[in-house]
Amino acid sequence: MGKEIIDEFRSYRKKMNERLLAQDNKVIKRIFNLDTNTYLDGALPARVKEMLGLVSSMVLRCDDCIRYHLEKCHEFDLSTEELMEVFAIANLVGGTIVVPHTRRALEYWEELNKRE
Amino acid sequence: MGKEIIDEFRSYRKKMNERLLAQDNKVIKRIFNLDTNTYLDGALPARVKEMLGLVSSMVLRCDDCIRYHLEKCHEFDLSTEELMEVFAIANLVGGTIVVPHTRRALEYWEELNKRE
Amino acid sequence: MGKEIIDEFRSYRKKMNERLLAQDNKVIKRIFNLDTNTYLDGALPARVKEMLGLVSSMVLRCDDCIRYHLEKCHEFDLSTEELMEVFAIANLVGGTIVVPHTRRALEYWEELNKRE
Amino acid sequence: MGKEIIDEFRSYRKKMNERLLAQDNKVIKRIFNLDTNTYLDGALPARVKEMLGLVSSMVLRCDDCIRYHLEKCHEFDLSTEELMEVFAIANLVGGTIVVPHTRRALEYWEELNKRE
Amino acid sequence: MGKEIIDEFRSYRKKMNERLLAQDNKVIKRIFNLDTNTYLDGALPARVKEMLGLVSSMVLRCDDCIRYHLEKCHEFDLSTEELMEVFAIANLVGGTIVVPHTRRALEYWEELNKRE
Amino acid sequence: MGKEIIDEFRSYRKKMNERLLAQDNKVIKRIFNLDTNTYLDGALPARVKEMLGLVSSMVLRCDDCIRYHLEKCHEFDLSTEELMEVFAIANLVGGTIVVPHTRRALEYWEELNKRE
Repeated sequence: MGKEIIDEFRSYRKKMNERLLAQDNKVIKRIFNLDTNTYLDGALPARVKEMLGLVSSMVLRCDDCIRYHLEKCHEFDLSTEELMEVFAIANLVGGTIVVPHTRRALEYWEELNKRE
Repeated sequence: MGKEIIDEFRSYRKKMNERLLAQDNKVIKRIFNLDTNTYLDGALPARVKEMLGLVSSMVLRCDDCIRYHLEKCHEFDLSTEELMEVFAIANLVGGTIVVPHTRRALEYWEELNKRE
Repeated sequence: MGKEIIDEFRSYRKKMNERLLAQDNKVIKRIFNLDTNTYLDGALPARVKEMLGLVSSMVLRCDDCIRYHLEKCHEFDLSTEELMEVFAIANLVGGTIVVPHTRRALEYWEELNKRE
Repeated sequence: MGKEIIDEFRSYRKKMNERLLAQDNKVIKRIFNLDTNTYLDGALPARVKEMLGLVSSMVLRCDDCIRYHLEKCHEFDLSTEELMEVFAIANLVGGTIVVPHTRRALEYWEELNKRE
Repeated sequence: MGKEIIDEFRSYRKKMNERLLAQDNKVIKRIFNLDTNTYLDGALPARVKEMLGLVSSMVLRCDDCIRYHLEKCHEFDLSTEELMEVFAIANLVGGTIVVPHTRRALEYWEELNKRE
Repeated sequence: MGKEIIDEFRSYRKKMNERLLAQDNKVIKRIFNLDTNTYLDGALPARVKEMLGLVSSMVLRCDDCIRYHLEKCHEFDLSTEELMEVFAIANLVGGTIVVPHTRRALEYWEELNKRE
């Protein structure tokens, strides 16, 4: 892996989301819609919500979901120190089975930071 | 990914199933046996059972299991509209962590349909 | 447990759903809405969708979700033989950790049938 | 359930934690220790960390863990509106199987608020 | 809880297993059969297999499965020190969401030991 | 896949563990430390503990964790017959969703044995 992991993730995700939405299933479309609205600023700032999305994705061990929220956390200028504290909670609550996902998450994060 | 995802999945699965069964562990052999019998026509038709197997594999987020049941659903001529309703239930019950698996499932399904 | 498990489940569920919705959080309200719409007749009949909801709840081991879908399956006149085949798939795919939930599911099902 | 759910949870948790620690297993003792340290103020404030612990407990569907983090969120004066946004993310990411845990979480939260 | 947790667990389990088997579903019956055979002496002694069953039940967080394997571990004279090391692995691999199950497991274990 | 899966796994794991530890987050460092200590000889021999780690990784379906414990089981001279009994318990307790991980585990195990 390396630089290309970001572009591959983004382009596959975009392509298949379009094909999924093209099927015109109402429930799927509403879930996609909700997925955008849930993370907007509200009583909690969007920045905190993205960390909540990230930690949830980590304990549920979904690499693609982790990458998506890492991108958002990066947009919100999360520091690596803050990120590591999210990782710490995920590994404590979810156990050492979260470690391999943490390794891949850190790699993706470092690629995001190189790209700036 | 593309056309070859079907052949790769099938050949790796076949090869390793043979090697697993060659170990001659009784429990593993019986579980493999049960796995075939459970999805046969009974009080419920095999077609419905394959959808039950598919939705279970989706909420438990096992890509290989999803592919296997997609192949079976394809043999039973499930329409893409029906499939999308199985996907909808999986994503509602299992949450947005099922979305990445749904993207990969749709890709595999579309490859299966191209091949006919 | 006995007769009262049905009434207790229904009344607690109803009471707390009302209190949840009273909080007026848009995302929660839309998820509740979706939860109703997803299981309506579509390309797949509602009866099949309820079985899909049931098997998903079983492999994810959520007793309350199981009870809810058992009630719906009961309304759609699922036979006990059909139900047992849903249970069989759930226990095969999800493993023996599903067994304790299957015990409680059968008890609830038998209570539902007594009540008629 | 009602008022007593708070006292029952707290006293059982306290009693059994003491009995667990009395066994003097080093790994268990260190995990308990870590569990305290992880949620202290750091790059992220303890208040945010408790929300991260809460959402993780919700998507992993652990009622006791949820209660513990609700108590902490209550100490940090989380508003019910903020809490509902944590619930929303948990239900979106984790799916409708999180709903029954959300019902019980709201009940516990309302008891905590009555007690003040 | 107290003394009666052992009798309640055993009698409910026995009663509902009988009712499940009475339904005469072949898959369910074979899974029950396998469940007995898998834990018999083989290349690995039954005593080790029961620990493997226990740790699996813990990380998958199934209280009833935990209780069943605790009973078996007790029959095989596992020491509390050995048990605590199984608990330690479960809590490390599965994370702090296993802690509440560990509290209940220790309580059940101590009841089993009092009964001798 | 083939010979190279062992080297790839080991080098990626080593590289990213170093980068994770370089971040100097105390919780992550302590979890890594605990991860080593937990599997040392104690009341239970390290050999049994590695099997406990393996079966936990299998039912939680973490391929990287499985590989790590396979390496350790190999160091402790586990026979393939013993290994298959660990696999059997994992597939029974965790269900057929564990099968794809078992296929990959056997492949990795056979590569480890070729290498001697």
